[in-house]
Amino acid sequence: GKKAEDAPPVNLGWDSHSAVDTIPDSLVREGDGPDGNYPMRSKFEKMCREAQFKITKAIEEIDGEAVFREDAWTRDNGGGGMSRVMSGGKVFEKAGVNLSVVYGSMPQEALQAATERGVDRAKGMAPGERVPFFACGLSSVMHPKNPHCPTMHFNYRYFETDGGVWWFGGGTDITPSYVNEDDLKHFHGTYKEVCDKHDPGYYKEFKEWADRYFVIQHRNETRGLGGIFFDDQNNKDPEQHFNFSQECVNSVVKAYGPIIEKHKDDPFTQKEKEWQLMRRGRYVEFNLVYDRGTVFGLKTGGRIESILMSLPETARWEYNVIPEEGSPEAEFIDACKNPREWV
Amino acid sequence: GKKAEDAPPVNLGWDSHSAVDTIPDSLVREGDGPDGNYPMRSKFEKMCREAQFKITKAIEEIDGEAVFREDAWTRDNGGGGMSRVMSGGKVFEKAGVNLSVVYGSMPQEALQAATERGVDRAKGMAPGERVPFFACGLSSVMHPKNPHCPTMHFNYRYFETDGGVWWFGGGTDITPSYVNEDDLKHFHGTYKEVCDKHDPGYYKEFKEWADRYFVIQHRNETRGLGGIFFDDQNNKDPEQHFNFSQECVNSVVKAYGPIIEKHKDDPFTQKEKEWQLMRRGRYVEFNLVYDRGTVFGLKTGGRIESILMSLPETARWEYNVIPEEGSPEAEFIDACKNPREWV
Repeated sequence: GKKAEDAPPVNLGWDSHSAVDTIPDSLVREGDGPDGNYPMRSKFEKMCREAQFKITKAIEEIDGEAVFREDAWTRDNGGGGMSRVMSGGKVFEKAGVNLSVVYGSMPQEALQAATERGVDRAKGMAPGERVPFFACGLSSVMHPKNPHCPTMHFNYRYFETDGGVWWFGGGTDITPSYVNEDDLKHFHGTYKEVCDKHDPGYYKEFKEWADRYFVIQHRNETRGLGGIFFDDQNNKDPEQHFNFSQECVNSVVKAYGPIIEKHKDDPFTQKEKEWQLMRRGRYVEFNLVYDRGTVFGLKTGGRIESILMSLPETARWEYNVIPEEGSPEAEFIDACKNPREWV
Repeated sequence: GKKAEDAPPVNLGWDSHSAVDTIPDSLVREGDGPDGNYPMRSKFEKMCREAQFKITKAIEEIDGEAVFREDAWTRDNGGGGMSRVMSGGKVFEKAGVNLSVVYGSMPQEALQAATERGVDRAKGMAPGERVPFFACGLSSVMHPKNPHCPTMHFNYRYFETDGGVWWFGGGTDITPSYVNEDDLKHFHGTYKEVCDKHDPGYYKEFKEWADRYFVIQHRNETRGLGGIFFDDQNNKDPEQHFNFSQECVNSVVKAYGPIIEKHKDDPFTQKEKEWQLMRRGRYVEFNLVYDRGTVFGLKTGGRIESILMSLPETARWEYNVIPEEGSPEAEFIDACKNPREWV
């Protein structure tokens, strides 16, 4: 795939975020030109907002102590967003779910950061021509405290560029510090079931896509133990893609919640905690160097605190740590270097 | 200046590092083609190796407990290096000094990551033509434990590309968590004195260069409180540039050591420690997203553990922290947003 970092830094001119006390009912502008698929924009936004509410509520229940803090903002030239962030919980060190609605225009080169097929999409455009776009998405990272509780990330988005071009992208993936086959069977199994209902080819394709995408290239290992990832989906009726995205978002709690319930009170050693913090260091490496959404956001004037909400509260880098052969830590690295089938 | 991340990932084919027990007397190959300035290559390497020894010895004395661990390696197609890393010291959480000697060839685009004038240097080359290069450098980061002790970084390097092109680059800069005017006067003052001996314009030029270079662009703040930074230096006799680089390297301990001695036992609060860890998070953001050496190394198959030695052992990201007006933390951010004159 294309690398996000190939794209030069750009400023889309929407780096002005005004905090608002109450978020408008919709951040989508009605009747926005002949090219916009206004109904899908609104529908996708509504789906994201409902999911944001449901997922944060479920996470608060699992945590039992902390609540999500809400920050909403609008942008000068349209759109806006709402971050819901929890920190210092009983179970979760840091968890966030961000809604984002963006109207902007980007240089053609930035398309590479927006989509794997950026170059194709720029065909036929005049040199220097900017690409107006609309994007709506919900993204989330949850970092639990217990080293036996995996970190989870999801992102679902709907994109449009000029000329009636649209596509769906997204995925949910899991980043434990240790291999627990039952947990991984449950997580991958949940998403396999969702995939299978919509397309018999989806799970295989999107599971492999996640294994390819979430790679820390300079270490030749994956960030975590995968899940599903897809982009540029526009070969079916938009409603079908929407239904699939919706079911994926709505399966986050089912896929992730039971794993946290199961392990949140697991005993752990100082060594296991430090290993978890080192894996979080890897998480930071992936997100700052390779993650398409992060790099796109940093280079296009997104709201920094919302983008970097994905980083763990604590991370650790020790020099040249090589886990002992046969140890659970070595087993984990092996699974990161050689992606496995879990279901 | 050019952004390192504009360059596409490349593999120079020297990502094969063989650990060696004893490093050869020199990693520079003798009589390496008609274009190479063999004497300067050797001279610069020798200077780096002596400085590595002296600086690590001085840091061990300041720490009083921990010692540097040494890893040496050679590369299949020439060159090699030696990392000296200390961790878990009494004073230093993590400190490293890396010697690196590299023979390679890079795509023209990678020149952008190697030097600010990369594009100029590629003029007249055939499309797709690779650029053979030689690089020798010493780089270092020291992260002390006490939040009143600043982190320090330096890097001095000598580069050659085909056709007799050569240049010197480098710098030393300081990243405290709080503003301490006396410390900054001492640090900047030491380097001003060095600069003034070699060129009356150097300090102003290279201090401003550091303020421009060490910027976390997505936050519009500097990583730390500057120092000196220079690149592409080739407008004088090579010996003059060498002498300047040598005196800069040899002034590291004089500029930095007394600050650590002064503050290593300062009392501090939990809040100050957490602030330091958040500043370390910023350090990670700069290094992984913008630092030319780090990005160049990650994209060209450098020895990962040596490159990422620069990352702190511990770092922290809290959501949307805004220091209270008038607090020492707010004062620090102000100095990062509006670079000051210290001498």
